[in-house]
Amino acid sequence: MSDPALQPVVKEIPPKAADLSAWYTAVCLKAELVSYSPVRGCVVLRPYGYGLWENLQKHLDKAFKDTGHENAYFPLLIPEGLLLKEAEHVEGFAPEVAWVTHGGQEELTERLAIRPTSEAIIGVMYAQWVESYRDLPILINQWANVLRWEKATRPFLRTMEFLWQEGHTAHAHAAEAREETLKMLDVYREFAENVAAVPVYAGIKSASERFPGAVETFSIEALMPDGKALQSATSHDLGQNFAKAYDIKFLDADQQIKYAYTTSWGMSWRMLGAMIMTHGDDRGLRIPPKMAPLEAVFVPIVRKGDERAVAAAHDAAKTLREAGFRVRVDDRDQQPGWKYAEWDVRGVPLRIEIGPRDVDAGTVVLVRRDKAKGDPEQKQSVPLDQLAQHVRVSLDAIQLSMYEEAKAFLHEHTPRANDRAEFTRLCKERAGMVDITWCGRAACEAHVKAETGATTRNTRALDGDETSCVACGEAATVRAYFAQSY
Amino acid sequence: MSDPALQPVVKEIPPKAADLSAWYTAVCLKAELVSYSPVRGCVVLRPYGYGLWENLQKHLDKAFKDTGHENAYFPLLIPEGLLLKEAEHVEGFAPEVAWVTHGGQEELTERLAIRPTSEAIIGVMYAQWVESYRDLPILINQWANVLRWEKATRPFLRTMEFLWQEGHTAHAHAAEAREETLKMLDVYREFAENVAAVPVYAGIKSASERFPGAVETFSIEALMPDGKALQSATSHDLGQNFAKAYDIKFLDADQQIKYAYTTSWGMSWRMLGAMIMTHGDDRGLRIPPKMAPLEAVFVPIVRKGDERAVAAAHDAAKTLREAGFRVRVDDRDQQPGWKYAEWDVRGVPLRIEIGPRDVDAGTVVLVRRDKAKGDPEQKQSVPLDQLAQHVRVSLDAIQLSMYEEAKAFLHEHTPRANDRAEFTRLCKERAGMVDITWCGRAACEAHVKAETGATTRNTRALDGDETSCVACGEAATVRAYFAQSY
Repeated sequence: MSDPALQPVVKEIPPKAADLSAWYTAVCLKAELVSYSPVRGCVVLRPYGYGLWENLQKHLDKAFKDTGHENAYFPLLIPEGLLLKEAEHVEGFAPEVAWVTHGGQEELTERLAIRPTSEAIIGVMYAQWVESYRDLPILINQWANVLRWEKATRPFLRTMEFLWQEGHTAHAHAAEAREETLKMLDVYREFAENVAAVPVYAGIKSASERFPGAVETFSIEALMPDGKALQSATSHDLGQNFAKAYDIKFLDADQQIKYAYTTSWGMSWRMLGAMIMTHGDDRGLRIPPKMAPLEAVFVPIVRKGDERAVAAAHDAAKTLREAGFRVRVDDRDQQPGWKYAEWDVRGVPLRIEIGPRDVDAGTVVLVRRDKAKGDPEQKQSVPLDQLAQHVRVSLDAIQLSMYEEAKAFLHEHTPRANDRAEFTRLCKERAGMVDITWCGRAACEAHVKAETGATTRNTRALDGDETSCVACGEAATVRAYFAQSY
Repeated sequence: MSDPALQPVVKEIPPKAADLSAWYTAVCLKAELVSYSPVRGCVVLRPYGYGLWENLQKHLDKAFKDTGHENAYFPLLIPEGLLLKEAEHVEGFAPEVAWVTHGGQEELTERLAIRPTSEAIIGVMYAQWVESYRDLPILINQWANVLRWEKATRPFLRTMEFLWQEGHTAHAHAAEAREETLKMLDVYREFAENVAAVPVYAGIKSASERFPGAVETFSIEALMPDGKALQSATSHDLGQNFAKAYDIKFLDADQQIKYAYTTSWGMSWRMLGAMIMTHGDDRGLRIPPKMAPLEAVFVPIVRKGDERAVAAAHDAAKTLREAGFRVRVDDRDQQPGWKYAEWDVRGVPLRIEIGPRDVDAGTVVLVRRDKAKGDPEQKQSVPLDQLAQHVRVSLDAIQLSMYEEAKAFLHEHTPRANDRAEFTRLCKERAGMVDITWCGRAACEAHVKAETGATTRNTRALDGDETSCVACGEAATVRAYFAQSY
């Protein structure tokens, strides 16, 4: 039986526009994506939420393998001495580390960190594995849990333990490492836009937002409905910093011993949070078909004891399953309206209604979750014998439509500010990704943050002539998106 | 560059029959399945080893889903107070737990255990999720890392951290929980035999070998070439013990509040160790095709500048890949003999040789890794235009042959002992799985262990009339396999 202290009771989903934060928590719990756990800062990823994670894994893992990467697994625990080898790295992560001090009855002579990220332990191993230029590149990815000590808990967005993948590569040349960093950034952009249907801006992080120990950090940044940005993945060019700290050296073809160039890149279950906030509505989740644990759910309608629709639904579901679709029949003993609401909360892209009259006519009704009630595109009667083709068309249309909708929102909420007053106002009002020409100076960035709460999300090359920084008036070096952020 | 202290240098693989332990370590390192890490008790699973794990996951995950289970993810850290709730459970695991005592700069008020297994945290969550009999059964599996404090390190067989899966289910009725326990035991047996090609005995563990807190533990037990048994998976009927400890109650259809019945079941990367030891030979690994990261490797042979074989190999590999095979072309600038030896170490089931004369004839030579040099079945010339069919037939034949070979070994090394002297001698000599009628008493088992080093592996029903225990002369209640074990 439930312990009420552990389980926030969610009776209804509050309106999304009124309080995004309350809406988000309610949807995550009510759709059974997660449960709060008795472990501070940690959530349980329930089967429906894990289904989202499995789809993320399936798509990203294929993209990693298609670009020549292999998976491996490195230890969870990292001796303190190893973490200390890269100075900036340890400074960045030390406040967030959980420490193991005892094993069984024994007190350890050296504390062990639970990995907050794995550059240190992987660097040590690469140093062992690399001898000559023939051993390079090393292209490895790890699917793992990591832990960063946090006080706050927000499902997917901020938890102490989280699931992610971290790629770690080593190269003989600087240019090749940079190329890898950008290639994986593009894999992330492609996944966010074409699978999670979340449009993003890809670019370079400012120095203050750089990964501790990196030469350059790149990110993809999404925009949430409340006008706050959400960093959805990062890709780091680590130069020779980690190779020097962990002694990753190789004998090059010219007989010189050189340090390797390394990269790392990661996406976590945070991406699921971005997807949930971007697409959900007052009825609950809306999941893009490619990410949906269930692409379609059949709701058979029984009238006056006529149960033919139930058998017809199971037959049709079998056909769709054989065609590779993820579908389910909801034949529970409940009213159809109750079921509609439940699957709406869970965001299943397509509902397939079938009643006695449909059975007579050899049709079913497809109902799109992404469209509002009353929208002419929401419902469509289609012949049963062409169902798989119609489901394919509908799911593709939903995927595209959700992306286009989100993309329109992003573009509408990316104002260009041309003077300081307008810039400050847009940042404070959370108008979205405020796009300015920027000087790139940390002092300017700190000043904007203090005044408005906004930080640089990422930067890109100037698209015009020499100009000045909208924020401070100094010479501009880049264009930058500023926003308040998660 | 390598730190020699961390990296046992393996120049050659010692003969398997002479020293199984030295052979095993050498093969695991030389085939690049694992590396030792600077973290005591922990190994790195390298890409080729992770490829084995991915194939285990793929097969088991499908079997779990086909039997109605879903995946989820629970927290890594378990507050000490939660672990203490099931008395036998904590007593069994406390000596093996790693403790987190500090987060960032802060000392914790309650220590957190790194999960040695997840019954405790999952029990707490099930108590939250279950209200009525309609919420049952819960059928969940978790793929996770777990940690048990160990001094020794043997790749796959004994490491502090390891990868596994743990299933956890809750049911309204005792009979249903028992049925689930046996169903998953059979999933494991099926996987071991038909995928890993490792024959096993399935049966009931004795009380002393039971999982801490279980009502009954079942296992599958394999036999290694040195006559020692290796427990390869377990499935536990937990009765109401954990439901009572963690308060998993439900309102039944009869309006009574009742405790649920729970099960748990797990297989770890230990299964990979069983597979490696069972099948390997003096040339290295022999991997059953269904588990092989690479099913076939092409070695094109270039003679006097005639490089046509390289292009032909790439063409043929492309055809096989499109037909769903996992293949690779080894076109490195090395002698064929050197490549043969390397792929032999890695245990790739099928080598495909192609030289200029093969190109002229439109043929390739298939070489089976499982057969010895000189065996008439080892090599076969087949036409290139029928290659996919021949590869399919060969891989199926290898899979079957490896299983039959291992099964013959198991049966030959399962002597039935009929008197105490013979039983003691067979146990001491590590003759294999010594099969006796047994009384089932812990005192008898302890006595056998003290005298011979052998323990019960698992037990099953008597297959004949009333009889006496071969070990002690009391009345027999079961048949039991005794063996020394890993």
